[in-house]
Amino acid sequence: MATLRRPSEQGWDRRVQWPLVVVSLVFVAAYAWPILDPELSRGVKRSLSTVVTLTWVVLTGEFVTRLLLARDRWAFLRHHPLDLAAAALPIFRPLRLLRLLSLLTLLDRVGRGSLRGRVGLYVAASVTLIVFTGSLAVLDAERGSTGPIQTYGDALWWSLETVTTVGYGDLYPVTTTGRVVAGLLMLAGIGVLGTVTAGIASWLVERVEDEGEQEDLEHGNAPATATDVQALREEVRRLREELAQRGRAGSGGPPA
Amino acid sequence: MATLRRPSEQGWDRRVQWPLVVVSLVFVAAYAWPILDPELSRGVKRSLSTVVTLTWVVLTGEFVTRLLLARDRWAFLRHHPLDLAAAALPIFRPLRLLRLLSLLTLLDRVGRGSLRGRVGLYVAASVTLIVFTGSLAVLDAERGSTGPIQTYGDALWWSLETVTTVGYGDLYPVTTTGRVVAGLLMLAGIGVLGTVTAGIASWLVERVEDEGEQEDLEHGNAPATATDVQALREEVRRLREELAQRGRAGSGGPPA
Amino acid sequence: MATLRRPSEQGWDRRVQWPLVVVSLVFVAAYAWPILDPELSRGVKRSLSTVVTLTWVVLTGEFVTRLLLARDRWAFLRHHPLDLAAAALPIFRPLRLLRLLSLLTLLDRVGRGSLRGRVGLYVAASVTLIVFTGSLAVLDAERGSTGPIQTYGDALWWSLETVTTVGYGDLYPVTTTGRVVAGLLMLAGIGVLGTVTAGIASWLVERVEDEGEQEDLEHGNAPATATDVQALREEVRRLREELAQRGRAGSGGPPA
Amino acid sequence: MATLRRPSEQGWDRRVQWPLVVVSLVFVAAYAWPILDPELSRGVKRSLSTVVTLTWVVLTGEFVTRLLLARDRWAFLRHHPLDLAAAALPIFRPLRLLRLLSLLTLLDRVGRGSLRGRVGLYVAASVTLIVFTGSLAVLDAERGSTGPIQTYGDALWWSLETVTTVGYGDLYPVTTTGRVVAGLLMLAGIGVLGTVTAGIASWLVERVEDEGEQEDLEHGNAPATATDVQALREEVRRLREELAQRGRAGSGGPPA
Repeated sequence: MATLRRPSEQGWDRRVQWPLVVVSLVFVAAYAWPILDPELSRGVKRSLSTVVTLTWVVLTGEFVTRLLLARDRWAFLRHHPLDLAAAALPIFRPLRLLRLLSLLTLLDRVGRGSLRGRVGLYVAASVTLIVFTGSLAVLDAERGSTGPIQTYGDALWWSLETVTTVGYGDLYPVTTTGRVVAGLLMLAGIGVLGTVTAGIASWLVERVEDEGEQEDLEHGNAPATATDVQALREEVRRLREELAQRGRAGSGGPPA
Repeated sequence: MATLRRPSEQGWDRRVQWPLVVVSLVFVAAYAWPILDPELSRGVKRSLSTVVTLTWVVLTGEFVTRLLLARDRWAFLRHHPLDLAAAALPIFRPLRLLRLLSLLTLLDRVGRGSLRGRVGLYVAASVTLIVFTGSLAVLDAERGSTGPIQTYGDALWWSLETVTTVGYGDLYPVTTTGRVVAGLLMLAGIGVLGTVTAGIASWLVERVEDEGEQEDLEHGNAPATATDVQALREEVRRLREELAQRGRAGSGGPPA
Repeated sequence: MATLRRPSEQGWDRRVQWPLVVVSLVFVAAYAWPILDPELSRGVKRSLSTVVTLTWVVLTGEFVTRLLLARDRWAFLRHHPLDLAAAALPIFRPLRLLRLLSLLTLLDRVGRGSLRGRVGLYVAASVTLIVFTGSLAVLDAERGSTGPIQTYGDALWWSLETVTTVGYGDLYPVTTTGRVVAGLLMLAGIGVLGTVTAGIASWLVERVEDEGEQEDLEHGNAPATATDVQALREEVRRLREELAQRGRAGSGGPPA
Repeated sequence: MATLRRPSEQGWDRRVQWPLVVVSLVFVAAYAWPILDPELSRGVKRSLSTVVTLTWVVLTGEFVTRLLLARDRWAFLRHHPLDLAAAALPIFRPLRLLRLLSLLTLLDRVGRGSLRGRVGLYVAASVTLIVFTGSLAVLDAERGSTGPIQTYGDALWWSLETVTTVGYGDLYPVTTTGRVVAGLLMLAGIGVLGTVTAGIASWLVERVEDEGEQEDLEHGNAPATATDVQALREEVRRLREELAQRGRAGSGGPPA
């Protein structure tokens, strides 16, 4: 579960969570707007670019703060590869949106659910965010190139066929940045396939085992529980007590 | 198993099941005919369109009735996302055919089988229905567009390569509606891959465990069953009884 | 294991196995030759066609004989869908080659191996045969059409990218027969993916459980075995015997 | 674990490991340089070709030595199919790089980790090496052909979409050698998908079982451990001792 909750950083996390979500949304809006509407005037574009830089400074500053607060900094870096990449490399910036995943931990606190259900929820939310941010990033990289991905609709459709590993080939990235984004989407797709399969497999294995246990119960082949053995010890203890009593009674007076 | 049988609605379900299957088939025939034969005369097309609207009203009415009868309406909506989509959005209308899956519950009542077998049957039937209805829906969306999918044969072949995530790219949808249908087919494909894998994995895990248990049995390492412990308690109980008898015999008269 | 060995038919199977393998190989040679070398003279082509028909009669006759010998004929048909398809439909004829899989049962008798190993061997052999026969069948269907698959090398390459669900789209079938063959290859591919994953999953689950059991053993948390309880019953039995002896000694004479 | 560590050859392995890693790196440098820079002068190309031949002789000689040292030579060949192929067939030569995987066993000795973690590390490292060597090999085969793969960047991108089974089809090999390399990449991709899925499945199954055991513990339904039964035997033994003492006390003098 280590990847789902990280208790050591929860104090800081809780205080800055909501402001960071707001900053992330501002970042995404300022990042996405000029990509989705390339006809914007120069002035607006420059202002949005400033907003992107400012929010990037805030988000990276927060990441560095958390890194300095962490007890084991190497472990922290190892567990936050996406944050590290987003802080270091401009092309990973849209991954900032993944921070919104932390909102799911709120759901986690309120709702209850099976482990499988929660894992499924994380995966579905991650994939949705990855597809949307991947579309933005690939459109940003491909627009203006000779590649076939030139509108957000196309980028979204391409993300979908990539993440499901279908890959028709009607659309594909041609720039290096676009291909790096594609690689991340493919890895995400393998993760999704794996998690869906694992979820169904775990459900099936559990159900089949339950059926087997039910049968065992009906045929008296259920494994002995600690409670069974406890009852037996109780029986033996009472036997000893009775013997002790009789022994005392026996030594209290002659049997005849 | 919650997704396979829903006991709370079985009363209403049983009475309306057969009429609904008939209405669904009429709906599908009236929906599919003008798609498969675009040369139909205007009058026939208009009549079929009326039949589609009427059956849609009946099927949606039935869905609303079941929603009102449900004890927990939010849970009901959450468990019937396809029905909800089919009632609300015209492009999901062909999903009505999925209602035919309810016929499988009849098979379920008659036949017996392992959980794996029943899950496999549901998946195979769902995929077959999804491929056929997906072909219809995508052809309806793509016909007349500039895309390469223009005949039912092509639509069927495209559905097959999409649901298996092969995706040659000789055919692909270009309209938004067609791409939404493609997304549903891809998700269905991931589900199929996952269920097939999970079924084989569950079978293998079970067989390997059985072999391990067989070996354990031969080496006397089988876990103690509740029956084993029960036999032991019986032994101790008899010991106590004998002691009690001897004790009574001992205090009843002198031993010599 | 029902799908791997079918004990009820082993008597007949053993006697006709070798002749059938020879007939199958003759069938395949006569079937494949004119596909691989379309420049053959008319006379040779006609002779090979006669050989295909004759071997088809023999192989189908053998299938019908086994069907008549089977105790439960519906079950027999249900367990041999490929044989049934190959007997009934000309396009499934190359599936005859799958009969060579029965040779693996010979290996099975000689060698010993884990269940996983044997399943893996069957899958690897089936896929190899399916890829080679699928290439033959698709080339037979596509040669002369407007599709891009025109040589055996291309057909083999196409089979490989189909069975692994990669599907570049540089080659794809355009005839209905070719697409049916493609569908079979895709299903085989899903089966392969599923079996490989299931094999690895089963191995991992077993190893992780073994590690857990090892730890349990070291901490004394291993489940009680039937042998443990048996030892305890022995202890109680001896206690009863001693009590019985002392009781007899006690009643044989005064303690002092 | 047989495939991860092979204890029988560890003596020889340990002494030659580091020299072989150096020879492998020299081999790869001499092999890759003319592929990545086709503008090299003839003299340099000839020298590099000599280096490739020399290192090939060393690496193959080492393989033959290990084969002769092995107790069971057939088993050795069966467990080293890649080494055999690399020694026998020129197109498999880049697989020599896979020898670098043996460096992971060093990590293995230093670090500790769960089985899943180590399997994941092997798979990730193998895939990375396979993608890079596959790109080299395919570029070597395709450069100069009419196929679309003509630069190392394209070859790397093509490897990535092949190993994840996405297969857009914007790039594909057209030479036989290139297609054999593609086949190896596809098989590697299936292995990756399978291992990722198996890892997640094994984690989920374990966690769900742990939750079940936790619940069992809370409800006293945990299986009886060998320790439980041991405690019970101790109880019975003490009972026998007390009886024996009382018996001796009883026979030592009259109770009254």
